[in-house]
Amino acid sequence: MTADLSRCSLNTATVKHASLAEAVEAAAGAGLGAVGLWRHQVQEAGAEKAARIVSDAGLRVSSLCRGGFLTATDEAGIAAALEDNRRAIEEAATIGTRELVFVVGGLPAMSAPGQGPRPDAGTADRDLVATRARVADRIADLAPYAAEHGVRIVLEPLHPMFAADRAVISTLGQALDLAAPFPAETVGVVVDTYHVWWDPALAESIARAGHERRIASYQVCDWILPLAAEPLNSRGHVGDGYIDFPTISRWVAEAGYDGDVETEIFNEEVWAAEPARTAATVGERYASHVLPHL
Amino acid sequence: MTADLSRCSLNTATVKHASLAEAVEAAAGAGLGAVGLWRHQVQEAGAEKAARIVSDAGLRVSSLCRGGFLTATDEAGIAAALEDNRRAIEEAATIGTRELVFVVGGLPAMSAPGQGPRPDAGTADRDLVATRARVADRIADLAPYAAEHGVRIVLEPLHPMFAADRAVISTLGQALDLAAPFPAETVGVVVDTYHVWWDPALAESIARAGHERRIASYQVCDWILPLAAEPLNSRGHVGDGYIDFPTISRWVAEAGYDGDVETEIFNEEVWAAEPARTAATVGERYASHVLPHL
Repeated sequence: MTADLSRCSLNTATVKHASLAEAVEAAAGAGLGAVGLWRHQVQEAGAEKAARIVSDAGLRVSSLCRGGFLTATDEAGIAAALEDNRRAIEEAATIGTRELVFVVGGLPAMSAPGQGPRPDAGTADRDLVATRARVADRIADLAPYAAEHGVRIVLEPLHPMFAADRAVISTLGQALDLAAPFPAETVGVVVDTYHVWWDPALAESIARAGHERRIASYQVCDWILPLAAEPLNSRGHVGDGYIDFPTISRWVAEAGYDGDVETEIFNEEVWAAEPARTAATVGERYASHVLPHL
Repeated sequence: MTADLSRCSLNTATVKHASLAEAVEAAAGAGLGAVGLWRHQVQEAGAEKAARIVSDAGLRVSSLCRGGFLTATDEAGIAAALEDNRRAIEEAATIGTRELVFVVGGLPAMSAPGQGPRPDAGTADRDLVATRARVADRIADLAPYAAEHGVRIVLEPLHPMFAADRAVISTLGQALDLAAPFPAETVGVVVDTYHVWWDPALAESIARAGHERRIASYQVCDWILPLAAEPLNSRGHVGDGYIDFPTISRWVAEAGYDGDVETEIFNEEVWAAEPARTAATVGERYASHVLPHL
């Protein structure tokens, strides 16, 4: 019997070197039901054409990556972040997904606000509490625009090892606290196994996320060791590492989530593989490690 | 005016290549008040002689590292862990510290129980929930023996990036939950900035730890980037990275902690420096970044 891969989605970052058309072909060829897209691809093709490439292949768009980078302290940086995120919201609406994933940014640069989201330790503003408060303010700024466009701001907690340089949202519970002031259809959360698998509060946070109807995406990839020189690219195919996918998938299912399960892997070796082979592996691992527990 | 370094302690792992006598000399020479010791050093010198080396230099022992590695699933592994930890408790009593730091271990090997605490992904028992439950059982096994010897089992939450291979206690709140069934003088916790700085619940967890009188040690070192090839050795001197020491030190002080502040740095460059220079830097950074906020 062939497994039902209709909820299995290939995030195109997993086949980084493929064009949008190639990635979509690989996903469709492997029998998957959806793809998760990135803004640079959508912008290259044009949002309407990108939408057509996906729908012509019989696939859905499970999410768009990514908005965010909201931690600037200076007026110009804040204005630029809001402007860019409004464009991202429009692109998500055009591409046909409600789910716009936000990576909110790390500690900002203190003395050189224009430097971007990865300041040296020497110039970093170390006030993590205030940085997190600014993220809450920016979400409040953007929520009405997202709601107008029928798009959901989807907060992604990143693994705590990225708290300094990439995302000051570090746990699912914190993401839910930040989402709490807004309707569930306007601000949601991602459950990404790579980032949250270690969390002692994971079971209760997933249950809460389901109860609040905020689970916008379930993303899967594995924690492998040793970490890569660039830890961002340390992820492995589901089943190659230490994560307990049956348990976490069951928690997600019990929380009522019935949407797509997106595989997003940043890994030089995976990127070097043929997209068709990668998409097939994504489908196989989903079928063996995730689907039976959903 | 010279800063009061009486609460500043040098964990001897910071001067890894120094003998116990050399490490103690460096700490005393820099005007520090205490040292944190490791079992292998204590065992080499003999516990009584090690105690004398420290007290003859006018220093105190702030803690002993380390017990733990409690996650074995098989009877032989469990018995060996309990036996080794009873020896550690005796050594702590002899060396003259109440505080025995526990690193509880990562996911155990499933098919090869004798392999030790860092199994390959292929043989790892991925059941994190059950692994954490076993840690609770082993603490219960050891608590009476610790109490008899006037020694405190001090649970150390490690950064979540070590959850697979080193310690399944990942947050201060989780450590406090594990400590909760036992008297505060028998099971305590470490607040180590490197491991917990990112935690959105840190302020409330430190306050809770203080309220419950369980803070057994405040350890400081900084989060620096990029991570080292061995992430365990990525730590930096206080002030060289991204951690907000004034804020965290204030939380610790407000929680009522008035014990030693131990600097523990694993870093190849720091290890290559002269112990006297390292001890002096530890004192200087403590004086500038921590002491004013205690």
